Amino acid sequence: MTDPYFSSRRSVRKFQDKEVDSELLDSILERAMKAPNTGNMQLYSVIVTHDKMRRAELAKLHFSQPASTGAPVLLTVCADVHAFGRWCEVSHADCGFRNFLSFTTSFVDAIIYSQQIVTIAEKEGLGTCYLGTVLYNAPEIASLLELPKGVIPVACLAVGWPDGEGVETERLPLEAVMHKETYSPRSDEEVVRLYKEKEEYEPNRGFVAENGKENLAQVFAEVRYPREMNENVSRKLKEYLAENGMI
Amino acid sequence: MTDPYFSSRRSVRKFQDKEVDSELLDSILERAMKAPNTGNMQLYSVIVTHDKMRRAELAKLHFSQPASTGAPVLLTVCADVHAFGRWCEVSHADCGFRNFLSFTTSFVDAIIYSQQIVTIAEKEGLGTCYLGTVLYNAPEIASLLELPKGVIPVACLAVGWPDGEGVETERLPLEAVMHKETYSPRSDEEVVRLYKEKEEYEPNRGFVAENGKENLAQVFAEVRYPREMNENVSRKLKEYLAENGMI
Repeated sequence: MTDPYFSSRRSVRKFQDKEVDSELLDSILERAMKAPNTGNMQLYSVIVTHDKMRRAELAKLHFSQPASTGAPVLLTVCADVHAFGRWCEVSHADCGFRNFLSFTTSFVDAIIYSQQIVTIAEKEGLGTCYLGTVLYNAPEIASLLELPKGVIPVACLAVGWPDGEGVETERLPLEAVMHKETYSPRSDEEVVRLYKEKEEYEPNRGFVAENGKENLAQVFAEVRYPREMNENVSRKLKEYLAENGMI
Repeated sequence: MTDPYFSSRRSVRKFQDKEVDSELLDSILERAMKAPNTGNMQLYSVIVTHDKMRRAELAKLHFSQPASTGAPVLLTVCADVHAFGRWCEVSHADCGFRNFLSFTTSFVDAIIYSQQIVTIAEKEGLGTCYLGTVLYNAPEIASLLELPKGVIPVACLAVGWPDGEGVETERLPLEAVMHKETYSPRSDEEVVRLYKEKEEYEPNRGFVAENGKENLAQVFAEVRYPREMNENVSRKLKEYLAENGMI
């Protein structure tokens, strides 16, 4: 039963200069809809960006990371209460979906859908990579893709035929993320032990040296995801959600 | 290449009275960690509820829906910035992760991880069902599972050996969720057409009749997910996130 794909799954950031056939893409997006969703309301939508010019614009909003500039197609998956609201409108139903719970509900639906797209696409031999930057420039992305209010971009996937294999990255031991029955508080010594392998992983040691930091946690917390940036983006994101009635 | 599993995938809400071997469960949870995540920080954790008494308590917080009371194991997947924060603490790194962006980032990681668990578990022949109620009683669930601040339960999965096949449910046509290049505004007529099949689906017609409503949208918006409930839960959820420094 065990499928080896899952144990060695990796993201792909470099793609061949080759189109993804739109029939194949449609088929993937359609099959992915069989993923679970909340109450079968399917509170998500997906915007397919093929057009070269628009792709270049969108890639800029993802800080031109290589996966975004090199992929033949970008998929922006959105938490979407607008479509459901339109259905309610034509049905004379009182739709109370402009609130934070509805945002989180549609957020869950959209991310489950995204991950199902990833799995099915990769099973078809395609490579994919999440662009984790989508929430950094959500209002600008919404504007470029002409999203109406109530449609929030929450995941972006670069998709294409892999050029090379992608790099398999290390993971924490299961013990670091799994808790039995109740959440186990960890002593300092246990924390050190659980992150030891990650810290000793050769590429990670390289990042520490490159950035002139003492250890890997400092690279993550102070260089890649620093407090001030997190707080600025949080403010921007909350304002944007408020304009959409989602918070 | 095409894997028939994805095209007929269904949730399971009824389980055999049979344990899920903990070696198998660990293996699923471990393999699922190969799912993509943000910056390889793995901002999630999973609490495994096996214990019968605690399971019964947890099921109550999920409004005793049958999947929650009948499953031999419940998995609560959490958006977790606490574990990362502990690592930063022992590493003398300045961790600025108590903010809304970090919440959404960890939320994405947790849902991707959940969906990978679902896919791998189902590939192993297990049945799964999301309990969409987890955010309704997040603070009570956090208290039962002894979650520290910064650990937010965002998905709960009932897992077990299926009793029967589960019911395959209908989906919207792809056209209803997919947009090419930009989000297409839909006329009233188009909305009616896109939801027609869903409205004519026999079980859905039954729900309309049972609830004495005019149409299916009214069942969703006014009976199942009414405005007042959404707004009350939103308030509770935002307060809880504020107490955790996540909003």
